[in-house]
Amino acid sequence: MNKVNLAEKLALISDHWNPRVVGELNSQHVKLVKFAGEFVWHDHAGEDEMFLVVKGRFRMEFRDRTVELEAGEFLIVPRGVEHRPVAAEEVEVLLFEPAEIQHTGTVESPLTRHDWERI
Amino acid sequence: MNKVNLAEKLALISDHWNPRVVGELNSQHVKLVKFAGEFVWHDHAGEDEMFLVVKGRFRMEFRDRTVELEAGEFLIVPRGVEHRPVAAEEVEVLLFEPAEIQHTGTVESPLTRHDWERI
Repeated sequence: MNKVNLAEKLALISDHWNPRVVGELNSQHVKLVKFAGEFVWHDHAGEDEMFLVVKGRFRMEFRDRTVELEAGEFLIVPRGVEHRPVAAEEVEVLLFEPAEIQHTGTVESPLTRHDWERI
Repeated sequence: MNKVNLAEKLALISDHWNPRVVGELNSQHVKLVKFAGEFVWHDHAGEDEMFLVVKGRFRMEFRDRTVELEAGEFLIVPRGVEHRPVAAEEVEVLLFEPAEIQHTGTVESPLTRHDWERI
């Protein structure tokens, strides 16, 4: 039962699109990730997903709209909704989502991660 | 599917120990709350609870130790563990916990809330 300092954990992350688990509760994961550039279009059939910006900004693209997010703002993407995060510059994001979630849904991409590293 | 700005929501809260729901996903609630002073000792038999400090600082007391938390840090209190948040000065906190959680566990206090207001 130790506290987690977001900045200390984020300092351990040097790559992009590779979420690390920093906490777990009620079968949900708390993850930290850095985005830069464009991710792949995907959805999660059974899981809602929360994105909270810690530092920087990015946009979440949907098929019919875009939501711009900056530090101190969060967005919940409901299950089944196709989305693609895009970051013009590096952004630090906290994710909250079920532990069983698949990184890119059913889409396979070079960016897809199949295991969740803990830091 | 609208984004939530933490500072804008926190500006709507003028009381203490009264968490407001600002998001829901996977049967979990995202809440915002301001603490000041001492809460009551309690535990949640079936729910883990996450406290992320947005602004300020507070301490989480356990029966055998205390954890000091400041902005950008979070703590997960496992189910069944007695705890009491104490804030020498007002602090802004984001909570993440199951939607069915009871505010003060099985303890009834003047601070106990039985409904979760959404803002």
